[in-house]
Amino acid sequence: MNIEVRHELGDEGPKDAARQHLINPSEEMAKLGRSDRPLFTHADGIYVWDDAGRKLIDGPGGMWCTQIGYARREIADAIRDQAMTLSYNSPWYFVNEPAAELARRIAELAPGDLNHVFFTTGGSSAVDSALRFMQFYNNVLGRANKKAIICRIDGYHGSTQLTAACSGRAWNRPNFDLASDQIAFISAPNTFRRPRGMSEAAFLNFLVEEFRSKVAELGPENVGAFLAEPLLASGGVIVPPKGYHQRILEICRQHDILYISDEVVTAFGRCGHWFASEDVFDIVPDIITFAKGVTSGYLPLGGLVISDAVLGRISGENAKGSFFTNGYTYSGHPVSCAAALANIDVISRDRILEHVRETAPYFQERIGSLRDLPLIGDTRGTGLLGCVECVTDPSSEQATKLDAEMALRVDRECYEAGLIVRPISNMCVLSPPLIITREEIDTIVGILGRSIEKVTNELRAEGRI
Amino acid sequence: MNIEVRHELGDEGPKDAARQHLINPSEEMAKLGRSDRPLFTHADGIYVWDDAGRKLIDGPGGMWCTQIGYARREIADAIRDQAMTLSYNSPWYFVNEPAAELARRIAELAPGDLNHVFFTTGGSSAVDSALRFMQFYNNVLGRANKKAIICRIDGYHGSTQLTAACSGRAWNRPNFDLASDQIAFISAPNTFRRPRGMSEAAFLNFLVEEFRSKVAELGPENVGAFLAEPLLASGGVIVPPKGYHQRILEICRQHDILYISDEVVTAFGRCGHWFASEDVFDIVPDIITFAKGVTSGYLPLGGLVISDAVLGRISGENAKGSFFTNGYTYSGHPVSCAAALANIDVISRDRILEHVRETAPYFQERIGSLRDLPLIGDTRGTGLLGCVECVTDPSSEQATKLDAEMALRVDRECYEAGLIVRPISNMCVLSPPLIITREEIDTIVGILGRSIEKVTNELRAEGRI
Repeated sequence: MNIEVRHELGDEGPKDAARQHLINPSEEMAKLGRSDRPLFTHADGIYVWDDAGRKLIDGPGGMWCTQIGYARREIADAIRDQAMTLSYNSPWYFVNEPAAELARRIAELAPGDLNHVFFTTGGSSAVDSALRFMQFYNNVLGRANKKAIICRIDGYHGSTQLTAACSGRAWNRPNFDLASDQIAFISAPNTFRRPRGMSEAAFLNFLVEEFRSKVAELGPENVGAFLAEPLLASGGVIVPPKGYHQRILEICRQHDILYISDEVVTAFGRCGHWFASEDVFDIVPDIITFAKGVTSGYLPLGGLVISDAVLGRISGENAKGSFFTNGYTYSGHPVSCAAALANIDVISRDRILEHVRETAPYFQERIGSLRDLPLIGDTRGTGLLGCVECVTDPSSEQATKLDAEMALRVDRECYEAGLIVRPISNMCVLSPPLIITREEIDTIVGILGRSIEKVTNELRAEGRI
Repeated sequence: MNIEVRHELGDEGPKDAARQHLINPSEEMAKLGRSDRPLFTHADGIYVWDDAGRKLIDGPGGMWCTQIGYARREIADAIRDQAMTLSYNSPWYFVNEPAAELARRIAELAPGDLNHVFFTTGGSSAVDSALRFMQFYNNVLGRANKKAIICRIDGYHGSTQLTAACSGRAWNRPNFDLASDQIAFISAPNTFRRPRGMSEAAFLNFLVEEFRSKVAELGPENVGAFLAEPLLASGGVIVPPKGYHQRILEICRQHDILYISDEVVTAFGRCGHWFASEDVFDIVPDIITFAKGVTSGYLPLGGLVISDAVLGRISGENAKGSFFTNGYTYSGHPVSCAAALANIDVISRDRILEHVRETAPYFQERIGSLRDLPLIGDTRGTGLLGCVECVTDPSSEQATKLDAEMALRVDRECYEAGLIVRPISNMCVLSPPLIITREEIDTIVGILGRSIEKVTNELRAEGRI
């Protein structure tokens, strides 16, 4: 920008700077330069404050990540101390203590023989690296064709070109180039939206057979990985039927297909355990990806943890001269890793996993109580993840425009009453900081319930329902 | 890992933890679990210390990123303070002051009308997002076929599947799936390796005509972007002939091809300016990507800055209902952005750009003095980026195995004498912290020169040359 233009803008405040100079994720291009997103100024515990001075409960937990809450001095001090000790080192040539120690701790916490960690800068790069590892693995094994990735509709795995192509959420796709003959989709295990008249048991069989058929259709020799969130988070907290992951894993094992469990949302306490794959869903996958909760969102960090069994097939005497040349400048960043170590210490010391396991049933019960409201079609969740689905027309098999409008209006009411929701289509999704208390859960559900009732009454008064 | 196995490992130190549990970028799979990378314990200014207590000058500047040097309290305090104020906010719905303010400052510092910033977590995600923006842009403009990307051999743009596919360095390619009919390569503008007998002027013409022919071959209606580092950094500090970028940009303008200048290495002072595109290479590109130096490596952060002209064509009335749904959990992370703001403040306050411009000629002259040594084939660079190329056989048109062995042996000597080099193939590349003094440059060049002489004498004694 030239200096004259700069001076004309004068003493623009941060909201004006954001409008003029920021492109945000999911930016509506028609409103570029005129968008009016709330500015958050500070935060403490489970609360954030906007620039109007409003105090809000952090319902989404930032973006599924603020596990231990805001303004924890332990984390801030650990970050500052590491920045003063060793603020950077090149992962290509050297190692640093926080990265090494964090890898050791994650290996301890991860299920089975998942003992080797590769660090990235977030969830997208974690999944991108996991998929590139799968390609590398099969190339070293001499199976150049075994690369297809099977994913689910409504799954979300990131925003690099590769991980976006694996994400089956419809609204992320317009205007992006995502086609790949190497990526195939199967249904979301969404019990609420299952075909009418089909029992849950029959639906589970349908899902498993659909996967089996997809593998057969592609040819097992061509399928490299199944990529799946334990529960589809941003697809709408879709919890699969019991036994789903085990039965899919069994088919993967039969055909030597890597099972990549994308725990970017579920790891580090969201479901009451360090990882959900084994402790909640009874599977030990080949690779787990993580991000978000690993630092409670204090700093960017992601990664993947790979099993010894998988690595053993392409390392040591089996390496065939290969180098895993994938890597990022900030892989194993010492300051991000120090934040993660402090975060894990706080979760352990404050018994936060135990707290989640004790509190989650109450949270689910209270969320479930909203199902009695007339326009709520479903409530569901697990751990401290919950979803309340607005359904204005019970005869529709899909969410309608009015359903989504209702959720947006509920969101607006909640915001005014001190609760952040930010719905996904017609779904009000909650994943509050893990330190939330029963009283605070009552407050959340109270605000949400009253907002739903208010909007329901308005819709009736408007003759829309 | 089960608890018994964990206890058996006992009080393993960090180096052992790294061996057992870390996968590093460029990991040699044959040595997985047995690699012996040095551990760095702490750092201050231009120095790092390894776990043997060795004090080393940071020759590569971490990984082209430690601009203002280590242990700067201003940065550590800014990070800590922001972590206590607002440690996270979701860029999908809200804005925060550090991200907004940093976007404004980058827009001020960037050339021309590049005024809108999209933040990512590093260089790979910055380039991935820039390329996805190009696809989005052409889709919104109704030019679904205009997506091919022209890149250069020896270029490096990242490690996501898409950005790795755009990287032309040969050693990043084995065992990875990088083929794409949307990506085409032209020659590196490497004057040192130009065809024998060709003048520099003729070489420049050859490079420009090669680009023009590639556009014609693909069809201009199919070419979406030219993606290029101003100088090819990890390809070996390849500085293109004067006029190269301008002439390529001219062809891009003729055919409405986006010029994406990948300044992940060059931005934020490496060449004595905030950005190198205009101030060093006389072009105003359509998009600039950045990372590394933006925080001096203190925290992960990257991004891209896009011109108003480009955005104007697909925003406001031209948006056609589009949403730029690309985005990362950590886009505009408040703590990373606070680190960048503090870093920019330090660079400004301490007049570090001026220091680089004053010091760079001396640095280049001293690096250049090494060309008099018998086995040095070329020295080159710009700003505080330098390269010394080992050539044991002047008759070879490519680097030989012995050239690379020589560089590795020089590296080992330098390390023992207190200087980190870490060569790229046969090239000893230097990009020290920008705060380096003339005396410290003398020390670097002295150690490097003596190490080259020592290895040269050894190679002679071994009868290898």
